[in-house]
Amino acid sequence: MVSREAIHTLLYPNSIAVIGASRNPKKIGFQIVYNLVKDGYRGRIYPINPYANEIMGFKAYPSIKEVPDEIDLAVISIPADKVEKAVKDSIDKGVKALVVIASGFSEVGNIDMERAIVDIVDSAGVALLGPNVVGVLNTTHSMNLSFCPSLPYKGRITMITQSGALAIGLVGWTWANRIGLSKMVSIGNMAQIGFEEMLEYLEGDDDTDTILLYMESVKDGRRFVDVARRVSMYKPIVAIKAGRSVRGAKAAMSHTGSLAGDVKLYDVAFREAGVIPAYGLEDGFDKALALHLQRPMKGGNIVVVTNGGGAGVLASDFAEENGLPLKDLPSDLMNSVRRVISPFGSPRNPIDLTGNAYKDDYIEVLEKVLTHPWVDGVVAIYVHAAITDPLEVADGIVSVANKYPDKPLTMAMIGGREVAIANAWLRDNGIPVYPSPRRAISAMSALYQYGKFLNRQLPRK
Amino acid sequence: MVSREAIHTLLYPNSIAVIGASRNPKKIGFQIVYNLVKDGYRGRIYPINPYANEIMGFKAYPSIKEVPDEIDLAVISIPADKVEKAVKDSIDKGVKALVVIASGFSEVGNIDMERAIVDIVDSAGVALLGPNVVGVLNTTHSMNLSFCPSLPYKGRITMITQSGALAIGLVGWTWANRIGLSKMVSIGNMAQIGFEEMLEYLEGDDDTDTILLYMESVKDGRRFVDVARRVSMYKPIVAIKAGRSVRGAKAAMSHTGSLAGDVKLYDVAFREAGVIPAYGLEDGFDKALALHLQRPMKGGNIVVVTNGGGAGVLASDFAEENGLPLKDLPSDLMNSVRRVISPFGSPRNPIDLTGNAYKDDYIEVLEKVLTHPWVDGVVAIYVHAAITDPLEVADGIVSVANKYPDKPLTMAMIGGREVAIANAWLRDNGIPVYPSPRRAISAMSALYQYGKFLNRQLPRK
Repeated sequence: MVSREAIHTLLYPNSIAVIGASRNPKKIGFQIVYNLVKDGYRGRIYPINPYANEIMGFKAYPSIKEVPDEIDLAVISIPADKVEKAVKDSIDKGVKALVVIASGFSEVGNIDMERAIVDIVDSAGVALLGPNVVGVLNTTHSMNLSFCPSLPYKGRITMITQSGALAIGLVGWTWANRIGLSKMVSIGNMAQIGFEEMLEYLEGDDDTDTILLYMESVKDGRRFVDVARRVSMYKPIVAIKAGRSVRGAKAAMSHTGSLAGDVKLYDVAFREAGVIPAYGLEDGFDKALALHLQRPMKGGNIVVVTNGGGAGVLASDFAEENGLPLKDLPSDLMNSVRRVISPFGSPRNPIDLTGNAYKDDYIEVLEKVLTHPWVDGVVAIYVHAAITDPLEVADGIVSVANKYPDKPLTMAMIGGREVAIANAWLRDNGIPVYPSPRRAISAMSALYQYGKFLNRQLPRK
Repeated sequence: MVSREAIHTLLYPNSIAVIGASRNPKKIGFQIVYNLVKDGYRGRIYPINPYANEIMGFKAYPSIKEVPDEIDLAVISIPADKVEKAVKDSIDKGVKALVVIASGFSEVGNIDMERAIVDIVDSAGVALLGPNVVGVLNTTHSMNLSFCPSLPYKGRITMITQSGALAIGLVGWTWANRIGLSKMVSIGNMAQIGFEEMLEYLEGDDDTDTILLYMESVKDGRRFVDVARRVSMYKPIVAIKAGRSVRGAKAAMSHTGSLAGDVKLYDVAFREAGVIPAYGLEDGFDKALALHLQRPMKGGNIVVVTNGGGAGVLASDFAEENGLPLKDLPSDLMNSVRRVISPFGSPRNPIDLTGNAYKDDYIEVLEKVLTHPWVDGVVAIYVHAAITDPLEVADGIVSVANKYPDKPLTMAMIGGREVAIANAWLRDNGIPVYPSPRRAISAMSALYQYGKFLNRQLPRK
């Protein structure tokens, strides 16, 4: 079993040897050194290459064993049949963590070759990520130890992905959508470190408050549930489980050699462990963002506040389909809302402020709703109207929502360019905002599911 | 029954009287004149206002009856209780179409007031849009006859919406997502013109090739099915049906006074009529875009081509969940694909090109897939990889996909800013592209459903 300290070194090394470092920009061994430097890694870097004296200004060594200093981590990007030797040399040198980028192991049937490496690292107490990974990206350590062209947008969500390609593709996505990550970790073949070990580490990671998984399979279902349930008590976990269908499971087998397993088993395991299921990439990020920015719902009463009736109808539909049906407001709340909204609006649930609503109308109604004890969560909807500046409305929403952090709020803003600007501002100020009622409701359902899980964990009297 | 010619005048008038035109920028009567001018309307404009001589440079008249020229259309934005008189005056003047922006009719219980107006326009053979509408936006006529701040992005999809707020909010959305509309028509209370009449007109509208509906209810279910089925033979219809849930139906009743009806009845009606159901706004536009840009699938065999294994697994899942399960490729196709892809890839379905795939790899494989008789449709996936320029890949996809227009193709591109640029280019060049496998598959399922409907209409031998 790999130690917490070894995994910490994997994510926060102070010195890195790059075995297979190259001067050829097309080689991964070049890109790793380049990315470390370009993205601001502040530790020491030792390129290992028997045919070079110097790479990108760093003195190169023919073997890791000839480096005169201590080394925390070695990243290995050489052909598969040479990896075992490099692993041994690295351990002899005293590294605490290994990242094996190289592919050509269990994912193509070379199971013994992979097993041999695991035996070596296990008995040495060294952490092993891979083989067959893109690498580790840690924004809080300014470390792009990978062949992703950049670090993700910085934040406090950590994503663990069994697909390396998705790690690369999603880095750009985090910038485009302003979803901040602490770490993006590609775990590849999971020969030693799998979801279980990463979750165990992340439980105590001060830089991570929310966890997002792209998962095709787990190594040990029972252990995954045990670990995930413990971690979920402190940090929400969202899982995009791929291979849910018959054909998807077959594709997962061909992709990562994963036994994707029966989807119903995963559903039960997730529920038991408090893991929030997500359906695809957008839903995964949507839910992780909501769980990162907002607190879980304490009960099941949501209120929809909208300036567009149609958007309110759509929200009502999706709420019901997500197990969070809107209910009638308590009469005192309905009456106090009725007194302040337009006579053409509706004080029911959804509350319809009509298209004439300004910033102050949102503030006034949200203040009443968020302070009412019956209310557990609010979905605010703004459909861009001719008369209002969405940034002003956003400012109003932020001012009132952040006064009552115990009542979670998600938002949908429907419109074009002005709305996109307001959305960026909302996300940067703690409001999970989405382009449609459907997604705002799905995000709220994650806060509901997580709250239900936490409630179940309370001691019964 | 309103004539086709009258509805044509409603959408393409050569002269417009604005009853309730105003010099106060906060009034809708100002915004309508302003928007007509600003967005390039080329017909004549007559402001009607008893207290002004001139509005925005146009001579104003105290009554429509005093205008010395012929007038095609009158738009009415005055208090509800004065609308009937304005309607009568307009008909006396000889208009062929009326747009009643004013609200305060059946949606707040004033059913008789609305009925009286309908009786007048019906017996005069005049088209009536409204009351309680945002207006008519027609990009092919450069006419923004509404209080939407701008025309939508120009194209060949026409959207008919029962929610006026959504009309305004979605105009910006069409620009942000490069989804081109011919017309956006807010039909409000549907006192005379409803979905049935609009569909009937659009069947013969040369500027419209795809129709998107936001619908809470229809006036006459049987007639809707009859009309929609006939129109669907020539032009696909996508419907976002709101009020599907118990609570959503209640909200629809409070929003538009709609009897949203049993969702199962709508499902059956849509299937019978070939109307493609959409779940929310994004799904509605996603499907309309695919149906606008690509031809329907002739059978049920789709092939997924991806450079990311995980994205391929997700696509497999969603395909199965959308009733389009991936099947094994015929062995001749699989073998010919195997010969050209990386040995680390997979020639099965999904075809995995691996992260090393360049533009030419996509072209070579897509050429084989699109020309194979077994294949009915292709979902291409590009996960942004370190080594490739997404715009180059996009260029390759366009070149090969547009050679075989009979085989529909949708695409998912996962990444950040570079991918957004490539996506804009893809959409402008006929490829419906989406940010996730889930949405690319959902769009393909619309092409499948529409193809199935068309197949059912073929004469049986």
